[in-house]
Parts: sequence; structure tokens; C-alpha cells
Amino acid sequence: MLPFFEEVSADLEAVEIELGKVLISEDAIINQTATHLLRAGGKRLRPAFALLSAKVYTDDVSPVWPLAVALELIHMATLVHDDVVDQADARRGKPTVRALWGNKVSTHTGDYVLAKALIQVSGYEDPLISRVLSRTCVRMCEGEIIQMHGIYEANLRNYLHRIRCKTACLIEASCKLGAVAGGAPDSIHYPLGRFGHYLGMAFQVTDDILDMVADELRLGKRVGGDLRQGIVTIPVIYALHQDGAAAARLSQIVENRSKTEDEVGEAIELTRELGGINYGRHMAGAYLEKAIQELKRLPDVPARDSLRQIAEFIQVRSY
Amino acid sequence: MLPFFEEVSADLEAVEIELGKVLISEDAIINQTATHLLRAGGKRLRPAFALLSAKVYTDDVSPVWPLAVALELIHMATLVHDDVVDQADARRGKPTVRALWGNKVSTHTGDYVLAKALIQVSGYEDPLISRVLSRTCVRMCEGEIIQMHGIYEANLRNYLHRIRCKTACLIEASCKLGAVAGGAPDSIHYPLGRFGHYLGMAFQVTDDILDMVADELRLGKRVGGDLRQGIVTIPVIYALHQDGAAAARLSQIVENRSKTEDEVGEAIELTRELGGINYGRHMAGAYLEKAIQELKRLPDVPARDSLRQIAEFIQVRSY
Repeated sequence: MLPFFEEVSADLEAVEIELGKVLISEDAIINQTATHLLRAGGKRLRPAFALLSAKVYTDDVSPVWPLAVALELIHMATLVHDDVVDQADARRGKPTVRALWGNKVSTHTGDYVLAKALIQVSGYEDPLISRVLSRTCVRMCEGEIIQMHGIYEANLRNYLHRIRCKTACLIEASCKLGAVAGGAPDSIHYPLGRFGHYLGMAFQVTDDILDMVADELRLGKRVGGDLRQGIVTIPVIYALHQDGAAAARLSQIVENRSKTEDEVGEAIELTRELGGINYGRHMAGAYLEKAIQELKRLPDVPARDSLRQIAEFIQVRSY
Repeated sequence: MLPFFEEVSADLEAVEIELGKVLISEDAIINQTATHLLRAGGKRLRPAFALLSAKVYTDDVSPVWPLAVALELIHMATLVHDDVVDQADARRGKPTVRALWGNKVSTHTGDYVLAKALIQVSGYEDPLISRVLSRTCVRMCEGEIIQMHGIYEANLRNYLHRIRCKTACLIEASCKLGAVAGGAPDSIHYPLGRFGHYLGMAFQVTDDILDMVADELRLGKRVGGDLRQGIVTIPVIYALHQDGAAAARLSQIVENRSKTEDEVGEAIELTRELGGINYGRHMAGAYLEKAIQELKRLPDVPARDSLRQIAEFIQVRSY
């Protein structure tokens, strides 16, 4: 477990047990796919964000458990559908549901997991929770659809909109709604929502940088995956907007639908030379700074420190 | 419009306008797929059931509109995903989203439409609505997954479980929650929920019979589609349980994964000879009788008559 989650470690264990219970079905195949999804792991970031955010306001965060379970289920459901759409056979070094059971079972498993999330949320009295969460789901779908056909309109504005939908929205909802489910007032859940938004933006920018520069062993997959799939992220967008022959060559490679492995490597090198990686790091840093500013509006409690440490960890992660 | 929906025709128009508004997005592709889904038509049965059920209790059913919109969106979302899973290129004689935009866009469009349904529902104060609806979504996914691998365990129990999940659940939810959203007490929404369940069962049994015996022009597709896809429905299950050479031959055809068109025709003929079609009609009739019995628990108002006429129409439809 990541050290800054210690404060909510008992709650995270409870959430893990609940996740196991929730996904049980009378149907053998659903049980197999669900067990596979649970064992595939994941850092349970969204539950942790919700729990820590609630901890800013209250010590007893057990009312947040169902929400935390729902957040992880929504995240899982999107991964299952993304694997169908991307025809991905492995994730985190393990075979996907799609690889083992095929597209049909995966499509319905994603729907099933999402529907289970809804049941978790339907127990809350405060309508804000299901309202924010359903809007978040809409945003996430929009983000995925934009990603599919936004390849040829690679500019900063589209990129920011896409990563907000794809990643930042759900982290924003996790932080905000964690506080709401814990009973926190506006003065607490508003800043936490904004913290989540900025943190989520930084998180995705960092992910996009790591996709180009990471140690392949630690990343668990080859670098350049986005380029290979035709997805243009901020380092490349920045590099493409520079003048000169290097940018022209980069543009040529990016627009070529059937890139060779050498060309993917060359594109990454050009992006780095043109300052794209540094620009991305600068951008992630600026978002994290904004996230940390939001924390200053909150009471000075240990959970707030943990949230700050997460922000600092993300910054380190991009190097 | 079907004649028994006249009582709620103004409300159905309002729902249709809302459906159009709800699906609008900033994204051009989402707008295109959504417009396509709306124009593809459909009888808007689920909204009509919800509105008529509310009418049993109250004259002003405008509070039911968002629910009615959500029910149709959920139905649409499942159709979009089913078309991906079944690799279907046409539905109701028109090209599917999948045929026009591909599997990727379809998968996310289904998710998007479902998420839009959640937003509609999140406005209701009564938690029963989102609770019943999310359970219904879980059931529907289970039903689809069971259908995929239940081919070789063709028996009555599995069949009934499958059609309950696949069809009856959402019609039950439509009737029950329509009444709930209209403010009706338990004494009204309980019988309406059971009415919806029985009606939904009869509806699916009838659909399964029509898949074998309908006029192809009126059905808008070839008969025998289920057999071709390896889906075994009640007429065939009944026929397979009979003794003798005809049932043995039928079993041989059903178990053959690559049936010829002649064999599909032969299987339908054998099913009819062995009494499977008649048995199915008898079953649909029994469910409709139960549905009509439930209506007797309700106040004697015009909406109740309309619901009874729907039940009678379904019976006629199976001939």
C-alpha cells in the first residue's frame, strides 16, 4: 500500500471485502470474470481519495464505503470496455477479460459492473451523490468518444477537454463525494472537488509523459503506446507546434497510420528534443501547485497532509 | 401510435422531445449516433407503461417524464450493446450504430446513453426509484450473459430466468416505478409491478414464438433468427422434451453449430409438429391471465382499461 493511504488502510480493507461480495453472482461466468477483475489488482486510488477526503471532516468514514466501492466499480467497468474498444489483450501485465472470455462477455461484464456500482450509490439519501456521479459517467463516455476521433485535431484545448473527461472527472467526483458522503459541508467538499480536478489533470498528464519516457519494466508495457494507437498527447502537441525541420518530421510520423517501431522511437526522441516532455512536466507541476493551494482552504488535519503527499508523489513520479 | 396509448399521447410527445434534448452533446459524433438512435424509432413501450401506470393513480403524470425518458434510454443502451455483441448490422430494417460507426463508437455510445439515463433518475427524491432501476440493470446484464453461454443447458427453468432478466424486469420496473414517480402508495405500485412482470414474460414468450412463425415482411427480418444464433427458446425446449424420432432429429439440428437454411426451416417445422408453438402460446396466455388478475386489485379507472387492452393485444399478436 502507498504510505499516504495508511490513515485509511482499515477502511480500504473493508472496501476490498465489499468489492468481493458485491461482484458475486449466481452465474458462474460472471463470477469468474469478476474474480479475475478483482485479482488483476490496481491501486484503489479512487476509493482512497474518497476515504481520505471524508477523513478531512470526520473520523468515522464507514458511511463512505459504498461510495468507495462504487467508484472502483465504475473505474473497473470503464477499463473492461476500453479493453474491448482497444482490442487490448493485456493490462498491468495480466490478460484482460476480453483476452480470456472474448468481446461479448466483456461488453456485458462492463455493463454488469457498472450496474452494480449504481446499486451501491442508490442507498444514499443525498441526491447530490448520484447526480454528480451520473454526470461524471456521461463525461467519461464523451471523453472516450472524443479520444477515438480527435486524433486529427490535436491541439491544447481538445487535449485538456479529453483528459478532464477521461481521468480528472472521476477523481474530482471521488474527492468531492467522499466528503459529501462523510457529511461535510460545502466549505469542505468544494475545495476537495477542485483539488481532485487539478490532481486528476496532473495525474493524466504525468501518465501521458510516462507513456513516452518510462522504464518499460516498471511501466509493465512498451513505451510509445499512445503514438502507436494514434493518440496524440501534450508532449507531442507541444512539439508539433514548434518551428523547423524536426517538428515537420514529427508531424510526418504522427500522421502516418502504419508507423514502424523505429519511427515510434524517433517520434519520442523528436518530442523530447523539441521540449515536449519538459513542457508536459511543467504543466503537471502547475496543476499540482493549484491542487495544493486548494488544500490550504481545509482544516489542518492529518488527512489533509496525506492528500498533499499524494500530490507531491505524482510530481516525483513524472521523472 | 397504438390505440391504448392515447390517454398518455401528450405525455409521450413530451417524452419524445425530452429524449431529443437529453441526447444532445457538444461532440459531433455523439450527436449523429444519438439522432440515428432516435430516428430508428421503436414503440416507446416502456415510457408508455410508466405513464399509464402513473395515470392509474393521478391525472398529472408530468413528474413521471424523467423516469419515462430514462427507461427508454436504458432500453436503447441495451440495444446498442446487443448489436455490438451480436455483430448485428440491421435492426427494425435500419442499419445499426455498429454498422455505421463501428464497434468502438457503439460500445461507448451505449455507455453514454445509459449514463444519460442515470442523470434523469438522479433528480428523484425517493431512493426506491434508483434502487429498483439499478437492480434492473444488473438483472438485464446477467440475462445477456446467461443467454450467451446457456445454449447447452436448454431447460424451462433457465429459459424463464433468462427472459425475466432480459425483458420482464425492465417492464416490471416501468410499471412499478411509473406509479411510484406519480406518488402512488404500495397498494397501487405493488400490483402494477407484478402486472408488468407477467406482461413482460408474456411479451418475450410471444416474441420468441413470432421469431419462428411470423410473416417475415411484418417481422422485418427472417424467421428462425434465434435458432440461427444458437438461442433455444420455449417452443424448441418443449419440443426437445418430447419422445420419438422427430424430437431426436430436432435435437440433432439444434446442436449443430453450422445449420443450413434448410435445417433451420426443418427445425421450425418439427417444433410446430411436436406442439412447441402451441405450448408457447398457452404459456403466454397463462402469463397474460395472471397480469389481468393483478389489474383487478387497482381502482377502476380508464388507465386500468388501457393496460388490460395491452395485455389482450399481446395475446392476439402471437397468432
